[in-house]
Amino acid sequence: MRIDIISVLPELMESPFQTSILKRAVQKGLAEVHFHQLRDWSIGKHKQIDDEPYGGGAGMVMMIEPIDKCISELKSQRDYDEIIYLTPDGETLTQKIANTLSIKKNLIFLCGHYKGIDQRVRDLHITKEISIGDYVLTGGELAACVLADSIIRLLPGVLNDEQSALTDSFQDNLLSPPIYTRPSEYKGLVVPEILLSGNSKKIEEWLHDEAMRITLEKRPDILD
Amino acid sequence: MRIDIISVLPELMESPFQTSILKRAVQKGLAEVHFHQLRDWSIGKHKQIDDEPYGGGAGMVMMIEPIDKCISELKSQRDYDEIIYLTPDGETLTQKIANTLSIKKNLIFLCGHYKGIDQRVRDLHITKEISIGDYVLTGGELAACVLADSIIRLLPGVLNDEQSALTDSFQDNLLSPPIYTRPSEYKGLVVPEILLSGNSKKIEEWLHDEAMRITLEKRPDILD
Repeated sequence: MRIDIISVLPELMESPFQTSILKRAVQKGLAEVHFHQLRDWSIGKHKQIDDEPYGGGAGMVMMIEPIDKCISELKSQRDYDEIIYLTPDGETLTQKIANTLSIKKNLIFLCGHYKGIDQRVRDLHITKEISIGDYVLTGGELAACVLADSIIRLLPGVLNDEQSALTDSFQDNLLSPPIYTRPSEYKGLVVPEILLSGNSKKIEEWLHDEAMRITLEKRPDILD
Repeated sequence: MRIDIISVLPELMESPFQTSILKRAVQKGLAEVHFHQLRDWSIGKHKQIDDEPYGGGAGMVMMIEPIDKCISELKSQRDYDEIIYLTPDGETLTQKIANTLSIKKNLIFLCGHYKGIDQRVRDLHITKEISIGDYVLTGGELAACVLADSIIRLLPGVLNDEQSALTDSFQDNLLSPPIYTRPSEYKGLVVPEILLSGNSKKIEEWLHDEAMRITLEKRPDILD
Protein backbone atom coordinates (compact mmCIF):
# COMPACT_ATOMS: atom_id res chain seq x y z
CA MET A 1 0.00 0.00 0.00
CA ARG A 2 1.10 3.52 -0.82
CA ILE A 3 -0.26 6.58 0.98
CA ASP A 4 0.50 10.12 -0.20
CA ILE A 5 -0.24 12.76 2.43
CA ILE A 6 -0.64 16.37 1.34
CA SER A 7 -0.29 18.97 4.10
CA VAL A 8 1.03 22.41 5.00
CA LEU A 9 2.54 20.84 8.14
CA PRO A 10 4.10 17.51 7.20
CA GLU A 11 6.60 17.93 10.05
CA LEU A 12 3.70 17.53 12.50
CA MET A 13 3.37 13.92 11.36
CA GLU A 14 7.03 12.94 11.64
CA SER A 15 7.18 11.18 14.99
CA PRO A 16 4.08 8.97 14.65
CA PHE A 17 5.48 7.51 11.43
CA GLN A 18 8.99 7.12 12.87
CA THR A 19 7.84 5.08 15.84
CA SER A 20 6.52 1.65 16.61
CA ILE A 21 4.12 -0.12 14.26
CA LEU A 22 4.01 2.48 11.48
CA LYS A 23 7.79 2.62 11.34
CA ARG A 24 8.02 -1.16 11.23
CA ALA A 25 5.39 -1.38 8.47
CA VAL A 26 7.40 1.05 6.35
CA GLN A 27 10.72 -0.66 7.09
CA LYS A 28 9.27 -4.04 6.14
CA GLY A 29 8.08 -2.55 2.85
CA LEU A 30 4.44 -3.28 3.68
CA ALA A 31 3.46 0.38 3.48
CA GLU A 32 4.95 3.38 1.72
CA VAL A 33 4.09 6.80 3.10
CA HIS A 34 5.04 9.94 1.16
CA PHE A 35 4.58 13.43 2.55
CA HIS A 36 3.97 16.38 0.23
CA GLN A 37 4.46 19.92 1.48
CA LEU A 38 1.64 21.84 -0.17
CA ARG A 39 3.79 24.99 -0.20
CA ASP A 40 5.89 23.35 -2.92
CA TRP A 41 2.89 24.01 -5.20
CA SER A 42 2.23 27.53 -3.86
CA ILE A 43 1.52 30.32 -6.32
CA GLY A 44 2.96 33.76 -6.94
CA LYS A 45 6.05 35.31 -5.48
CA HIS A 46 4.48 35.27 -2.00
CA LYS A 47 4.22 31.46 -2.18
CA GLN A 48 0.53 31.78 -1.43
CA ILE A 49 -1.57 28.75 -0.52
CA ASP A 50 -4.48 30.34 1.31
CA ASP A 51 -6.63 33.43 1.06
CA GLU A 52 -9.64 35.09 2.70
CA PRO A 53 -13.06 33.50 2.24
CA TYR A 54 -15.45 35.00 -0.30
CA GLY A 55 -18.39 36.47 1.58
CA GLY A 56 -16.29 37.34 4.63
CA GLY A 57 -15.87 35.59 7.96
CA ALA A 58 -12.96 34.55 10.17
CA GLY A 59 -10.16 32.23 9.14
CA MET A 60 -8.34 31.51 5.90
CA VAL A 61 -9.31 29.12 3.11
CA MET A 62 -6.88 26.83 1.30
CA MET A 63 -6.84 27.79 -2.39
CA ILE A 64 -7.77 25.44 -5.20
CA GLU A 65 -4.76 25.98 -7.45
CA PRO A 66 -1.90 24.60 -5.31
CA ILE A 67 -3.96 21.58 -4.27
CA ASP A 68 -5.13 20.91 -7.83
CA LYS A 69 -1.56 21.04 -9.09
CA CYS A 70 -0.28 18.71 -6.40
CA ILE A 71 -3.06 16.14 -6.80
CA SER A 72 -2.91 16.32 -10.61
CA GLU A 73 0.83 15.61 -10.53
CA LEU A 74 0.30 12.58 -8.29
CA LYS A 75 -2.57 11.33 -10.45
CA SER A 76 -0.38 11.58 -13.55
CA GLN A 77 2.08 9.16 -11.90
CA ARG A 78 -0.30 6.39 -10.82
CA ASP A 79 -3.95 5.50 -10.32
CA TYR A 80 -5.43 6.22 -6.91
CA ASP A 81 -8.22 4.16 -5.38
CA GLU A 82 -9.39 7.03 -3.19
CA ILE A 83 -8.52 10.68 -2.71
CA ILE A 84 -9.54 11.34 0.85
CA TYR A 85 -10.11 14.74 2.44
CA LEU A 86 -9.85 14.71 6.23
CA THR A 87 -12.56 17.07 7.48
CA PRO A 88 -14.90 17.28 10.49
CA ASP A 89 -17.93 17.21 8.17
CA GLY A 90 -16.88 14.00 6.40
CA GLU A 91 -18.21 10.50 6.95
CA THR A 92 -17.32 9.36 10.45
CA LEU A 93 -14.45 6.86 10.47
CA THR A 94 -15.41 3.38 11.67
CA GLN A 95 -13.52 0.12 11.89
CA LYS A 96 -15.48 -1.03 8.84
CA ILE A 97 -14.17 1.89 6.77
CA ALA A 98 -10.63 1.18 8.00
CA ASN A 99 -11.04 -2.48 6.99
CA THR A 100 -12.24 -1.49 3.51
CA LEU A 101 -9.42 0.99 2.96
CA SER A 102 -6.81 -1.52 4.15
CA ILE A 103 -7.22 -3.56 0.96
CA LYS A 104 -6.63 -0.57 -1.38
CA LYS A 105 -3.38 0.02 -3.21
CA ASN A 106 -2.89 3.77 -3.60
CA LEU A 107 -4.47 6.44 -1.41
CA ILE A 108 -4.11 10.21 -1.15
CA PHE A 109 -4.90 11.94 2.14
CA LEU A 110 -5.45 15.68 1.95
CA CYS A 111 -5.15 17.45 5.30
CA GLY A 112 -7.36 20.49 5.74
CA HIS A 113 -6.04 23.42 7.73
CA TYR A 114 -7.30 26.85 8.73
CA LYS A 115 -11.04 27.02 7.93
CA GLY A 116 -10.75 24.28 5.30
CA ILE A 117 -10.33 24.00 1.53
CA ASP A 118 -12.03 25.72 -1.38
CA GLN A 119 -15.22 23.78 -2.10
CA ARG A 120 -14.17 23.34 -5.73
CA VAL A 121 -11.30 21.04 -4.68
CA ARG A 122 -13.91 18.77 -3.14
CA ASP A 123 -16.04 18.88 -6.29
CA LEU A 124 -13.07 18.25 -8.58
CA HIS A 125 -10.82 15.68 -6.90
CA ILE A 126 -12.06 14.29 -3.62
CA THR A 127 -13.63 10.82 -3.76
CA LYS A 128 -14.14 10.33 -0.03
CA GLU A 129 -14.42 12.69 2.96
CA ILE A 130 -13.58 11.28 6.35
CA SER A 131 -13.93 12.67 9.86
CA ILE A 132 -12.27 10.84 12.74
CA GLY A 133 -14.96 12.09 15.13
CA ASP A 134 -17.37 14.86 16.14
CA TYR A 135 -14.80 17.35 17.36
CA VAL A 136 -12.59 19.95 15.76
CA LEU A 137 -8.82 19.72 15.52
CA THR A 138 -6.26 22.35 14.59
CA GLY A 139 -5.77 20.64 11.24
CA GLY A 140 -6.20 17.40 9.38
CA GLU A 141 -2.68 16.18 10.19
CA LEU A 142 -3.55 14.26 13.36
CA ALA A 143 -6.61 12.88 11.61
CA ALA A 144 -4.36 11.65 8.78
CA CYS A 145 -2.09 9.94 11.32
CA VAL A 146 -5.08 8.28 12.96
CA LEU A 147 -6.52 7.11 9.65
CA ALA A 148 -3.13 5.81 8.48
CA ASP A 149 -2.57 3.97 11.77
CA SER A 150 -6.04 2.39 11.73
CA ILE A 151 -5.42 1.11 8.19
CA ILE A 152 -1.75 0.18 8.24
CA ARG A 153 -2.00 -1.96 11.36
CA LEU A 154 -4.48 -4.16 9.48
CA LEU A 155 -2.07 -4.95 6.63
CA PRO A 156 -0.99 -8.60 6.76
CA GLY A 157 2.39 -8.94 8.44
CA VAL A 158 2.35 -5.59 10.24
CA LEU A 159 1.24 -6.78 13.66
CA ASN A 160 3.37 -9.50 15.20
CA ASP A 161 0.42 -11.59 16.16
CA GLU A 162 -2.32 -11.38 13.58
CA GLN A 163 -4.88 -12.70 16.00
CA SER A 164 -4.31 -9.55 17.97
CA ALA A 165 -6.11 -7.41 15.39
CA LEU A 166 -8.94 -9.90 14.94
CA THR A 167 -9.81 -9.83 18.65
CA ASP A 168 -9.85 -6.02 18.83
CA SER A 169 -12.82 -4.09 20.03
CA PHE A 170 -15.34 -3.44 17.19
CA GLN A 171 -14.13 -6.28 14.94
CA ASP A 172 -16.94 -8.51 16.26
CA ASN A 173 -19.34 -5.71 17.27
CA LEU A 174 -18.43 -6.26 20.92
CA LEU A 175 -16.22 -4.26 23.25
CA SER A 176 -13.37 -6.14 24.90
CA PRO A 177 -13.96 -7.98 28.18
CA PRO A 178 -11.95 -6.80 31.22
CA ILE A 179 -8.37 -8.05 31.16
CA TYR A 180 -5.99 -8.83 34.00
CA THR A 181 -2.37 -9.82 34.40
CA ARG A 182 0.03 -10.60 37.26
CA PRO A 183 0.03 -10.20 40.19
CA SER A 184 -3.27 -11.92 41.08
CA GLU A 185 -3.55 -9.64 44.10
CA TYR A 186 -2.34 -6.04 44.37
CA LYS A 187 -3.20 -3.78 47.29
CA GLY A 188 -6.20 -5.98 48.06
CA LEU A 189 -7.48 -5.87 44.47
CA VAL A 190 -7.92 -9.39 43.15
CA VAL A 191 -8.31 -11.00 39.73
CA PRO A 192 -11.68 -12.77 39.16
CA GLU A 193 -11.26 -16.38 40.28
CA ILE A 194 -12.56 -17.88 37.07
CA LEU A 195 -9.53 -16.51 35.16
CA LEU A 196 -7.21 -18.43 37.48
CA SER A 197 -9.22 -21.68 37.21
CA GLY A 198 -7.49 -23.10 34.15
CA ASN A 199 -10.87 -24.20 32.77
CA SER A 200 -10.56 -22.77 29.27
CA LYS A 201 -14.14 -23.49 28.22
CA LYS A 202 -15.56 -21.67 31.26
CA ILE A 203 -13.07 -18.85 30.83
CA GLU A 204 -14.10 -18.38 27.21
CA GLU A 205 -17.77 -18.27 28.22
CA TRP A 206 -17.01 -15.75 30.96
CA LEU A 207 -15.02 -13.51 28.60
CA HIS A 208 -17.84 -13.56 26.07
CA ASP A 209 -20.47 -12.84 28.74
CA GLU A 210 -18.39 -9.95 30.10
CA ALA A 211 -17.86 -8.54 26.61
CA MET A 212 -21.62 -8.71 26.09
CA ARG A 213 -22.36 -7.15 29.50
CA ILE A 214 -19.92 -4.29 28.94
CA THR A 215 -21.19 -3.64 25.43
CA LEU A 216 -24.81 -3.59 26.61
CA GLU A 217 -23.85 -1.23 29.42
CA LYS A 218 -21.62 1.17 27.50
CA ARG A 219 -22.40 0.89 23.82
CA PRO A 220 -25.66 -0.97 23.05
CA ASP A 221 -25.65 0.93 19.73
CA ILE A 222 -22.80 -1.14 18.26
CA LEU A 223 -24.50 -4.52 18.86
CA ASP A 224 -26.05 -6.02 15.73
CA MET B 1 -3.77 24.00 32.10
CA ARG B 2 -1.39 21.15 32.82
CA ILE B 3 -1.59 17.79 31.06
CA ASP B 4 0.50 14.79 32.17
CA ILE B 5 0.67 12.05 29.55
CA ILE B 6 1.72 8.55 30.61
CA SER B 7 2.86 6.25 27.81
CA VAL B 8 5.31 3.55 26.80
CA LEU B 9 5.96 5.53 23.60
CA PRO B 10 6.20 9.22 24.49
CA GLU B 11 8.51 9.75 21.50
CA LEU B 12 5.55 9.00 19.21
CA MET B 13 3.95 12.24 20.43
CA GLU B 14 6.95 14.52 19.95
CA SER B 15 6.25 16.17 16.61
CA PRO B 16 2.57 17.06 17.14
CA PHE B 17 3.50 18.97 20.31
CA GLN B 18 6.51 20.62 18.68
CA THR B 19 4.53 22.07 15.79
CA SER B 20 1.96 24.72 15.15
CA ILE B 21 -0.79 25.50 17.64
CA LEU B 22 0.24 23.07 20.38
CA LYS B 23 3.82 24.36 20.33
CA ARG B 24 2.62 27.95 20.45
CA ALA B 25 0.25 27.22 23.36
CA VAL B 26 3.13 25.73 25.34
CA GLN B 27 5.53 28.55 24.44
CA LYS B 28 2.97 31.15 25.50
CA GLY B 29 2.61 29.36 28.84
CA LEU B 30 -1.09 28.66 28.21
CA ALA B 31 -0.61 24.91 28.43
CA GLU B 32 2.00 22.70 30.06
CA VAL B 33 2.40 19.19 28.70
CA HIS B 34 4.56 16.66 30.54
CA PHE B 35 5.37 13.23 29.16
CA HIS B 36 6.06 10.30 31.46
CA GLN B 37 7.77 7.19 30.15
CA LEU B 38 5.96 4.37 31.94
CA ARG B 39 9.13 2.24 31.82
CA ASP B 40 10.61 4.57 34.45
CA TRP B 41 8.22 2.86 36.88
CA SER B 42 8.84 -0.66 35.53
CA ILE B 43 9.37 -3.48 37.99
CA GLY B 44 12.04 -6.13 38.52
CA LYS B 45 15.39 -6.42 36.85
CA HIS B 46 13.72 -7.01 33.48
CA LYS B 47 12.06 -3.58 33.70
CA GLN B 48 8.73 -5.27 33.15
CA ILE B 49 5.60 -3.25 32.41
CA ASP B 50 3.41 -5.86 30.72
CA ASP B 51 2.58 -9.52 31.07
CA GLU B 52 0.34 -12.19 29.57
CA PRO B 53 -3.39 -12.01 30.24
CA TYR B 54 -4.89 -14.27 32.88
CA GLY B 55 -7.15 -16.77 31.17
CA GLY B 56 -5.05 -16.81 28.00
CA GLY B 57 -5.52 -15.07 24.65
CA ALA B 58 -3.36 -13.02 22.31
CA GLY B 59 -1.58 -9.83 23.21
CA MET B 60 0.02 -8.44 26.34
CA VAL B 61 -1.61 -6.56 29.22
CA MET B 62 -0.11 -3.50 30.90
CA MET B 63 0.47 -4.33 34.58
CA ILE B 64 -1.13 -2.46 37.46
CA GLU B 65 1.99 -1.81 39.54
CA PRO B 66 4.00 0.51 37.25
CA ILE B 67 0.90 2.54 36.35
CA ASP B 68 -0.23 2.75 39.99
CA LYS B 69 3.20 3.99 41.04
CA CYS B 70 3.36 6.60 38.31
CA ILE B 71 -0.16 7.95 38.88
CA SER B 72 0.26 7.88 42.69
CA GLU B 73 3.44 9.94 42.41
CA LEU B 74 1.70 12.53 40.23
CA LYS B 75 -1.31 12.63 42.56
CA SER B 76 0.99 13.27 45.54
CA GLN B 77 2.26 16.41 43.77
CA ARG B 78 -1.04 18.07 42.84
CA ASP B 79 -4.78 17.52 42.56
CA TYR B 80 -6.07 16.27 39.23
CA ASP B 81 -9.51 17.12 37.87
CA GLU B 82 -9.63 14.00 35.74
CA ILE B 83 -7.48 10.92 35.17
CA ILE B 84 -8.38 9.88 31.66
CA TYR B 85 -7.72 6.51 30.07
CA LEU B 86 -7.71 6.58 26.27
CA THR B 87 -9.39 3.37 25.14
CA PRO B 88 -11.63 2.26 22.26
CA ASP B 89 -14.34 1.21 24.75
CA GLY B 90 -14.48 4.59 26.48
CA GLU B 91 -17.06 7.33 26.06
CA THR B 92 -16.85 8.70 22.51
CA LEU B 93 -15.14 12.10 22.37
CA THR B 94 -17.40 14.95 21.26
CA GLN B 95 -16.88 18.69 20.98
CA LYS B 96 -18.95 19.06 24.16
CA ILE B 97 -16.53 16.85 26.11
CA ALA B 98 -13.59 18.83 24.69
CA ASN B 99 -15.29 22.07 25.76
CA THR B 100 -15.84 20.74 29.30
CA LEU B 101 -12.26 19.51 29.65
CA SER B 102 -10.86 22.80 28.34
CA ILE B 103 -11.83 24.57 31.58
CA LYS B 104 -10.04 22.06 33.85
CA LYS B 105 -6.70 22.74 35.49
CA ASN B 106 -4.82 19.44 35.80
CA LEU B 107 -5.41 16.36 33.69
CA ILE B 108 -3.67 13.00 33.37
CA PHE B 109 -3.93 11.07 30.10
CA LEU B 110 -3.03 7.38 30.28
CA CYS B 111 -2.28 5.82 26.90
CA GLY B 112 -3.18 2.17 26.56
CA HIS B 113 -0.99 -0.08 24.46
CA TYR B 114 -0.91 -3.75 23.52
CA LYS B 115 -4.25 -5.30 24.51
CA GLY B 116 -4.88 -2.63 27.16
CA ILE B 117 -4.39 -2.16 30.89
CA ASP B 118 -5.16 -4.37 33.87
CA GLN B 119 -8.82 -3.75 34.79
CA ARG B 120 -7.81 -2.90 38.36
CA VAL B 121 -6.07 0.29 37.18
CA ARG B 122 -9.42 1.40 35.81
CA ASP B 123 -11.17 0.54 39.06
CA LEU B 124 -8.52 2.25 41.20
CA HIS B 125 -7.51 5.46 39.43
CA ILE B 126 -9.37 6.25 36.23
CA THR B 127 -12.11 8.89 36.49
CA LYS B 128 -12.97 9.10 32.79
CA GLU B 129 -12.51 6.78 29.82
CA ILE B 130 -12.44 8.36 26.39
CA SER B 131 -12.44 6.91 22.89
CA ILE B 132 -11.75 9.19 19.94
CA GLY B 133 -13.89 6.99 17.69
CA ASP B 134 -15.14 3.52 16.79
CA TYR B 135 -11.89 2.16 15.41
CA VAL B 136 -8.79 0.59 16.84
CA LEU B 137 -5.37 2.22 16.88
CA THR B 138 -1.97 0.76 17.64
CA GLY B 139 -1.98 2.57 20.97
CA GLY B 140 -3.49 5.43 22.89
CA GLU B 141 -0.74 7.87 21.90
CA LEU B 142 -2.43 9.29 18.80
CA ALA B 143 -5.68 9.44 20.74
CA ALA B 144 -3.90 11.45 23.46
CA CYS B 145 -2.59 13.87 20.81
CA VAL B 146 -6.07 14.26 19.35
CA LEU B 147 -7.65 14.85 22.76
CA ALA B 148 -4.94 17.34 23.75
CA ASP B 149 -5.30 19.22 20.46
CA SER B 150 -9.10 19.38 20.71
CA ILE B 151 -8.81 20.84 24.22
CA ILE B 152 -5.76 23.09 23.98
CA ARG B 153 -6.96 24.95 20.89
CA LEU B 154 -9.98 26.07 22.93
CA LEU B 155 -7.89 27.74 25.65
CA PRO B 156 -8.28 31.53 25.50
CA GLY B 157 -5.36 33.09 23.63
CA VAL B 158 -4.25 29.95 21.81
CA LEU B 159 -5.90 30.60 18.46
CA ASN B 160 -5.04 33.89 16.81
CA ASP B 161 -8.62 34.72 16.05
CA GLU B 162 -10.91 33.54 18.79
CA GLN B 163 -13.92 33.72 16.56
CA SER B 164 -12.29 31.03 14.52
CA ALA B 165 -13.01 28.38 17.18
CA LEU B 166 -16.54 29.63 17.82
CA THR B 167 -17.54 29.19 14.18
CA ASP B 168 -16.15 25.64 13.95
CA SER B 169 -18.26 22.71 12.88
CA PHE B 170 -20.18 21.20 15.86
CA GLN B 171 -20.01 24.32 18.06
CA ASP B 172 -23.52 25.30 16.91
CA ASN B 173 -24.73 21.78 15.99
CA LEU B 174 -24.30 22.61 12.32
CA LEU B 175 -21.65 21.56 9.84
CA SER B 176 -19.81 24.35 8.07
CA PRO B 177 -21.22 25.80 4.84
CA PRO B 178 -19.08 25.46 1.68
CA ILE B 179 -16.24 27.96 1.54
CA TYR B 180 -14.48 29.54 -1.41
CA THR B 181 -11.54 31.81 -1.98
CA ARG B 182 -9.76 33.41 -4.94
CA PRO B 183 -9.78 33.01 -7.90
CA SER B 184 -13.50 33.35 -8.59
CA GLU B 185 -13.08 31.10 -11.62
CA TYR B 186 -10.63 28.22 -11.98
CA LYS B 187 -10.74 25.77 -14.88
CA GLY B 188 -14.37 26.67 -15.45
CA LEU B 189 -15.32 26.11 -11.80
CA VAL B 190 -16.97 29.23 -10.42
CA VAL B 191 -17.76 30.62 -6.99
CA PRO B 192 -21.51 31.00 -6.22
CA GLU B 193 -22.54 34.51 -7.31
CA ILE B 194 -24.12 35.43 -3.99
CA LEU B 195 -20.71 35.31 -2.28
CA LEU B 196 -19.41 37.93 -4.69
CA SER B 197 -22.47 40.18 -4.26
CA GLY B 198 -21.23 42.19 -1.28
CA ASN B 199 -24.70 41.94 0.29
CA SER B 200 -23.68 40.78 3.74
CA LYS B 201 -27.21 40.10 5.01
CA LYS B 202 -28.01 37.85 2.04
CA ILE B 203 -24.61 36.18 2.30
CA GLU B 204 -25.18 35.39 5.95
CA GLU B 205 -28.59 33.90 5.15
CA TRP B 206 -27.11 31.84 2.33
CA LEU B 207 -24.29 30.54 4.55
CA HIS B 208 -26.79 29.54 7.23
CA ASP B 209 -29.10 27.86 4.71
CA GLU B 210 -26.16 25.97 3.20
CA ALA B 211 -24.94 24.88 6.64
CA MET B 212 -28.46 23.61 7.36
CA ARG B 213 -28.74 21.87 3.97
CA ILE B 214 -25.38 20.15 4.37
CA THR B 215 -26.11 19.10 7.94
CA LEU B 216 -29.51 17.68 6.95
CA GLU B 217 -27.89 15.84 4.06
CA LYS B 218 -24.81 14.47 5.82
CA ARG B 219 -25.45 14.46 9.55
CA PRO B 220 -29.11 14.94 10.52
CA ASP B 221 -28.21 13.22 13.82
CA ILE B 222 -26.28 16.23 15.14
CA LEU B 223 -29.16 18.72 14.68
CA ASP B 224 -30.96 19.56 17.90
